[in-house]
Amino acid sequence: MPHMADAPHLYEQLAADIAGAITRGALRAGERLPSVRRLSEQRGVSVATVLTAYLALENQGLIETRPKSGHFVRVRRASALLGPTEPRSRAGAPARVTVGTGVAALLAAMRDPAIVPLGAATLSPELLPIAALNRMMAAICKEMSTAGASYDAPPGLPTLRRQLARRAVTWGAELGEADFITTVGAMEALHIALRATTRPGDAIAVESPTYFGVLQLIEEMGLRAIEIPVHPVSGLDLDALDEALRTQRPRAILCVPNLHNPLATVMSDDAKQRLWRLGQRHDVPIIEDDIHGDLMHDGTRPRPLKAFDRDGRVLLCGSVSKTLAPGYRVGWLAAGRYQDAAERLKFSQSVATPTLPQMAVAEFLASGGYDRHLRRLRRQLSAQVARMREAVAHSFPPGTRVSAPAGGFVLWLELPAGCDALAIQARALEHGVAVAPGPIFSARGRFGSCLRLSCGFPWSPRLQAAVDTLGALAAAEAGRIGPGGRSRPGAAN
Amino acid sequence: MPHMADAPHLYEQLAADIAGAITRGALRAGERLPSVRRLSEQRGVSVATVLTAYLALENQGLIETRPKSGHFVRVRRASALLGPTEPRSRAGAPARVTVGTGVAALLAAMRDPAIVPLGAATLSPELLPIAALNRMMAAICKEMSTAGASYDAPPGLPTLRRQLARRAVTWGAELGEADFITTVGAMEALHIALRATTRPGDAIAVESPTYFGVLQLIEEMGLRAIEIPVHPVSGLDLDALDEALRTQRPRAILCVPNLHNPLATVMSDDAKQRLWRLGQRHDVPIIEDDIHGDLMHDGTRPRPLKAFDRDGRVLLCGSVSKTLAPGYRVGWLAAGRYQDAAERLKFSQSVATPTLPQMAVAEFLASGGYDRHLRRLRRQLSAQVARMREAVAHSFPPGTRVSAPAGGFVLWLELPAGCDALAIQARALEHGVAVAPGPIFSARGRFGSCLRLSCGFPWSPRLQAAVDTLGALAAAEAGRIGPGGRSRPGAAN
Repeated sequence: MPHMADAPHLYEQLAADIAGAITRGALRAGERLPSVRRLSEQRGVSVATVLTAYLALENQGLIETRPKSGHFVRVRRASALLGPTEPRSRAGAPARVTVGTGVAALLAAMRDPAIVPLGAATLSPELLPIAALNRMMAAICKEMSTAGASYDAPPGLPTLRRQLARRAVTWGAELGEADFITTVGAMEALHIALRATTRPGDAIAVESPTYFGVLQLIEEMGLRAIEIPVHPVSGLDLDALDEALRTQRPRAILCVPNLHNPLATVMSDDAKQRLWRLGQRHDVPIIEDDIHGDLMHDGTRPRPLKAFDRDGRVLLCGSVSKTLAPGYRVGWLAAGRYQDAAERLKFSQSVATPTLPQMAVAEFLASGGYDRHLRRLRRQLSAQVARMREAVAHSFPPGTRVSAPAGGFVLWLELPAGCDALAIQARALEHGVAVAPGPIFSARGRFGSCLRLSCGFPWSPRLQAAVDTLGALAAAEAGRIGPGGRSRPGAAN
Repeated sequence: MPHMADAPHLYEQLAADIAGAITRGALRAGERLPSVRRLSEQRGVSVATVLTAYLALENQGLIETRPKSGHFVRVRRASALLGPTEPRSRAGAPARVTVGTGVAALLAAMRDPAIVPLGAATLSPELLPIAALNRMMAAICKEMSTAGASYDAPPGLPTLRRQLARRAVTWGAELGEADFITTVGAMEALHIALRATTRPGDAIAVESPTYFGVLQLIEEMGLRAIEIPVHPVSGLDLDALDEALRTQRPRAILCVPNLHNPLATVMSDDAKQRLWRLGQRHDVPIIEDDIHGDLMHDGTRPRPLKAFDRDGRVLLCGSVSKTLAPGYRVGWLAAGRYQDAAERLKFSQSVATPTLPQMAVAEFLASGGYDRHLRRLRRQLSAQVARMREAVAHSFPPGTRVSAPAGGFVLWLELPAGCDALAIQARALEHGVAVAPGPIFSARGRFGSCLRLSCGFPWSPRLQAAVDTLGALAAAEAGRIGPGGRSRPGAAN
């Protein structure tokens, strides 16, 4: 049995809980934390555990120790932690998509290890159980001397599909082994789902903002995007979607109900129910990207939209790229009534998914190590996101708004109206810092004064310096506009 | 250093040489082979080696021993080994493509190990050095504990691209590391190449017949196919292509200059030169599928069209799926002037190629084991193809024509005019035998009386029985048509 990631230390759990409370606002800036003795009694842990947790939080910059007074939540600039503004509640007309330039800069930065990685949403390798996974892979390669000698033709490796069906139970979705097709990551699944449901020239409804990779794909497929606003708390604006379905007749809906990228919103079960009904009423398929569904900071697992699907119109796309091993490229598609078409498309697109990575991931899922790893990863991401929010609050100019993610590892920033995010991206790159500028998250170049920051790496002086740099660049932009600068409500949309 | 495939035995080399001579017709049916002693002297090998080679050839059914007389090339039916007919030398009008049904049956058969695999062009695992490759992979997984933890963003793994550049020298093509993008097999490379050069609705020139997977891809991409005939000896009909370029203005050309699938033709260097000039004159990109280029039975390595490319209009696609490990899904694209667009498409299509399989293939190529393996594989395929031709000659009805492949591992059969290949495919499946029917190799359902047989597995009684079955089904079809059946020259086109 390969060695698995260790169970978390008690102090880590405690520190993560407190970090979460700070992020949620349950503990406010300047508030005094319980004394070490009292917390030790409350939680039934040793004094040493509490002290170690407080030390960890202090190192993360979330709390501070005042001599003779105790521990306090660090004071943040009062202005800094406003939530993102609400969107105008209407969909835009279909737009041809062009997000190329900002994306190209982001990808170039991704390949350069000298650049601080706040741009692409990637995780630090040290957060992933990749060593354990690679050991499983090594054992499989040794034992299965002919594995990889044949095409693992669609729908893909049965043992992996069995594990996915098993996990689907924990999602609250009834999916069997035969409902899955394995793919080269979630992007191939999304590509196949779009090919199965649309034709070039079709309009499809997407969230606004949304992941730039999806917009790039839409652009390259000759599709047009109808942008549906995302509310910073409740997620996809269903009234706006309803209107778009009635007036613009998109051929499909593509959305991220769980931990939306970049806003990290999670739609309620009621909203998912309504979303599915909208699809049904207008007879439109819904492509669901669920890659962050396992990353809620509080350890819950929101149901995918697919769990509410009564007639096979939801095409669920997922992968282990945000939780286990991006470089393994193991993803899946549960395409409902489009399953046969999707299998054919998978075959002509890449014939088969690589066999050995599927085998290793299947074994990892079967081992139980995945849930243990997820518990640890969620805590770490929670702390990293909280730390990044703190740093943003300290370094960015007044009036900056920032999302309060319930999961995942990206932050969405709205800078004071008029700040040019693309200019900041370019200047930040000159300083060796990558960041994702708002306009690449929109087919119409909206979100001109927004930034997405990835929080995939443990806090470090290097990250602190990078955020300071970004804050200074943003402040310079805000200064350029002037303190009385144009106040345009909704300018970020 | 992992263990590599052994060098070939002398007798294997000798048997392969003789099998090749029989296939080429240099040794004819009924002809007497040199005496054991004489051949032993001629080749400078032991008598035992010659005896073992003759025994191997006898077991393969290629020669027979006549007591007191010596060894003879087995007598074949005089009628059976005609080459395929020449095509009408004109391109067809562009056609929407629909090859779905025959392909679906083929894929279903591919997943069922109980079915004799004469359909899909797959190799027996025992012919592949997969155990050695898997051992390399195991070592990499152990040593590189964080490999796979990051996306290997396009253009893909530098060590693999370096090895590809090194091999390109042996192809006679000047390609550097930066000229390659790694892909999920050659099909992803072809898909990206088509996306980079065409838009839905465009017409593209393809060979007729051609690989059904490409036709399926063209169909799903909303492209139209202009079918250019392939001459059974010289390959792509360049006069017909020239005419199509002038009159039908295809947006791209997709072809297999080396070991065409299914005809196994190899274009001469002069023809490749002319093909490139045609592309240049009409300013059309040429997508080259070179997946069989390493599989010439005589050990030569024909130059890819890319070697004649002076202005970056050739997009070379290749993989190790036909030589090393189909299930590793490691391929590549050298996209010339379309390189930037291809990198972007690769990113939005599947983000990255899986890291570890690339690492293992790179190490295998660097080890020198690949060339050693290829020498052995070519001999084995040569013998398997020769054996299959023999069996076809014995089992199929008079008037059957069969290709004489210089490499690779597929045979192309033209049954007597009027025989229904799709009906034969369906009936063969009932008997547990998969075969690829001619019409799936054409966008217009041509080649209605043709079959492609895969020779990827070592000869066995099971294969013999399968060919007997196919021959009987073909004979029944021919009988249905009647002995004086319609003689339609060119019906196979």
